[in-house]
Amino acid sequence: MTPGDSLANGQRSLGDPDIGYPLWPPLTSGCPRTSTDEVAYPLEVDYTYEKVDRALFTRPGHVNRGDGHDRWAPLLPPLSAPGLGEGGTPLVEIGDGVFIKDESRNPTWSHKDRLNRCTVSAAVGVGAEGIVVASSGNHGASAAAYAARAGLRCVVLGSDSMPPAVDSFLNAYGAVVLPVPQEDRWPLMRRLVDRLGLHPVSNLTVTHTGHPFGPEGYKTIAYEVFTELGVPRAVFVPTGYGELLYGVWKGFAELKRLGVAERTPRMFSCEPAAGGPLAASLRSGRLGAPIEVGPTSAYAIDCSVAGHRGVVAIRESGGQALLVSDEEMLSAQSEMARQGLWAEVSSAAALAGLRGLGGFDGPVVCVSTSSGFKDLAVGSRRSEPVEPTWEAVAGRLRKAGFPA
Amino acid sequence: MTPGDSLANGQRSLGDPDIGYPLWPPLTSGCPRTSTDEVAYPLEVDYTYEKVDRALFTRPGHVNRGDGHDRWAPLLPPLSAPGLGEGGTPLVEIGDGVFIKDESRNPTWSHKDRLNRCTVSAAVGVGAEGIVVASSGNHGASAAAYAARAGLRCVVLGSDSMPPAVDSFLNAYGAVVLPVPQEDRWPLMRRLVDRLGLHPVSNLTVTHTGHPFGPEGYKTIAYEVFTELGVPRAVFVPTGYGELLYGVWKGFAELKRLGVAERTPRMFSCEPAAGGPLAASLRSGRLGAPIEVGPTSAYAIDCSVAGHRGVVAIRESGGQALLVSDEEMLSAQSEMARQGLWAEVSSAAALAGLRGLGGFDGPVVCVSTSSGFKDLAVGSRRSEPVEPTWEAVAGRLRKAGFPA
Repeated sequence: MTPGDSLANGQRSLGDPDIGYPLWPPLTSGCPRTSTDEVAYPLEVDYTYEKVDRALFTRPGHVNRGDGHDRWAPLLPPLSAPGLGEGGTPLVEIGDGVFIKDESRNPTWSHKDRLNRCTVSAAVGVGAEGIVVASSGNHGASAAAYAARAGLRCVVLGSDSMPPAVDSFLNAYGAVVLPVPQEDRWPLMRRLVDRLGLHPVSNLTVTHTGHPFGPEGYKTIAYEVFTELGVPRAVFVPTGYGELLYGVWKGFAELKRLGVAERTPRMFSCEPAAGGPLAASLRSGRLGAPIEVGPTSAYAIDCSVAGHRGVVAIRESGGQALLVSDEEMLSAQSEMARQGLWAEVSSAAALAGLRGLGGFDGPVVCVSTSSGFKDLAVGSRRSEPVEPTWEAVAGRLRKAGFPA
Repeated sequence: MTPGDSLANGQRSLGDPDIGYPLWPPLTSGCPRTSTDEVAYPLEVDYTYEKVDRALFTRPGHVNRGDGHDRWAPLLPPLSAPGLGEGGTPLVEIGDGVFIKDESRNPTWSHKDRLNRCTVSAAVGVGAEGIVVASSGNHGASAAAYAARAGLRCVVLGSDSMPPAVDSFLNAYGAVVLPVPQEDRWPLMRRLVDRLGLHPVSNLTVTHTGHPFGPEGYKTIAYEVFTELGVPRAVFVPTGYGELLYGVWKGFAELKRLGVAERTPRMFSCEPAAGGPLAASLRSGRLGAPIEVGPTSAYAIDCSVAGHRGVVAIRESGGQALLVSDEEMLSAQSEMARQGLWAEVSSAAALAGLRGLGGFDGPVVCVSTSSGFKDLAVGSRRSEPVEPTWEAVAGRLRKAGFPA
């Protein structure tokens, strides 16, 4: 099956869906007409939906894993940057109709690869010589990998508290890593964009808008879930800025719009209880000033501001913004590991959200965003050496509950 | 497509292919009739090949990634343990017909998951309450994950020099981790098998034999490569004990035997030059006593003894046993990372082997076994903080070659 070219035809404001812009250049600072000093509105990509061949979703065809996003090219922005076999991750059932969508199987072992295939393609599309990203985690590493693959330079504005393993990760791809204090990242990023013409692949605005092409890449999660499982009752998503939440939602909404699916799932955002700007925004009825975020191990999703995309996904899907405690995330992390899936604490937010709510009638998908290797606590050795005698070994096993 | 049940019908000695045994129990201490005090011969699994439906390889059909090994069930031992969506990893082209088979996309981010779905299935098949594995790396973590998934206990005999990150990894799956001196691992393992009835999923013999069901899981790499690419000219494999090398070879040999493929690829083992027991065995004409292994960063494949499987794969395929230096592996690791694929040093042995030999006429596959996150050097921070001023940032970028 050759899916063909992108059917993207423009950008549309999420601040006012009647406002459209051409597809190029990507408006990386949000919608210029609807954004205010307090709230920035993102853009999404629009497509010539009437030209989409529905067989894209229903025709069985041999799928090469290396194809990655190319399989879904008509419903993505132009994929000008080469891929790495992003997506195509397995759904693993952990019992009672609960499926984990294991995004740690991506090229850089997180969901961010789906986004960065699209953002780096945008950088290639505008002829940029490089990209810049503010991140001290999965997003930066993924951007660095796709930039390397495309032959573009990559500058990562990291933070001074960046985990050393992430630093190794970023350096491996040849990125220039600049650890700077957290509060200096955005002004420096703006200057790198303005002065050096680097294409920004992370956020530049007061409330989160990010890159307009990025969340499109997350739609493929919905397409994949649909082809394997149909439409689940609910989807639970670890939520920082809400890009993943929105992307998955948009994918399902498109399937309904195209007449391929009859309904859509309810979307549940799962934020750390230590913060939770999306939950706060929904309570107050508006996106607003940064909230205070307390200590949490869920460093990948401990955001102080929300984005309008998350609001749209929750409202349109009839979903709910959940808050999960660190204790609940650690418990969910452990539950998944006992099923053979080692996810980082932030990734376990989805299952934690589901467990807090109780059961659903029908299949439920929890998106697990990344690998346990990414956690900060990894590398703190836990196992005590044991004397190499049978007595000592048997003693340790008895302690662990073995009938030794 | 429902591939159906296993067609496995027995075990066959690699010491003498005329010697067969029933399928159960798996002979985890090698072939009792051909093994000697100096050389142990492994067993392989035999199948009722005439009942294999060739459409398994040629019929396009929707493939759910979560199916994992189940897709190939007829040509695998009975899959009694539940899967985690193992295999189905992408082939990523890095130019000039060179494809990387990226095994870091597996459930525990290494090729070992293909093996452990089979070994843990064997443990379930014999009714064992648990498994035991001697490993301080990928193999142990993968075994622990599959044991957890199957509800079996898992004891890992680690080493006293085990990387702390691996320790976290093993503990996450609920394994009992016992760090003991290297030389005490095998005697303790034998006692754990004999006294507690734990099923061994790593080697118990003088020259390597390992678990007879294990390498069968690696055949699926050949099946996947074939369905995407046909038969490549050559396959390069990072080689420790030669189980992966043999499994991939056997998969291609089966495709020819079944009349699905017309030829087989040449197999190239890639061992660290610091050791290289397979290359030494082929030079001397026999498997023998342990060789000395010098210092190398390729800790996943720094073995002191070879196994007969590797000899078979190289001889039957008309291949070659290559030695690669740490420098060559680091260079190949860097080459892959600049294409967006961050592999551990050991994984880069395959591409290092290819680069040492030069070009091939036709597609070549290099198996990359695991993720860069597994390397010992990960976590040694490399990026110097930078003052958050434009001058300091611009200075750092100029040093990195930017026209800032």
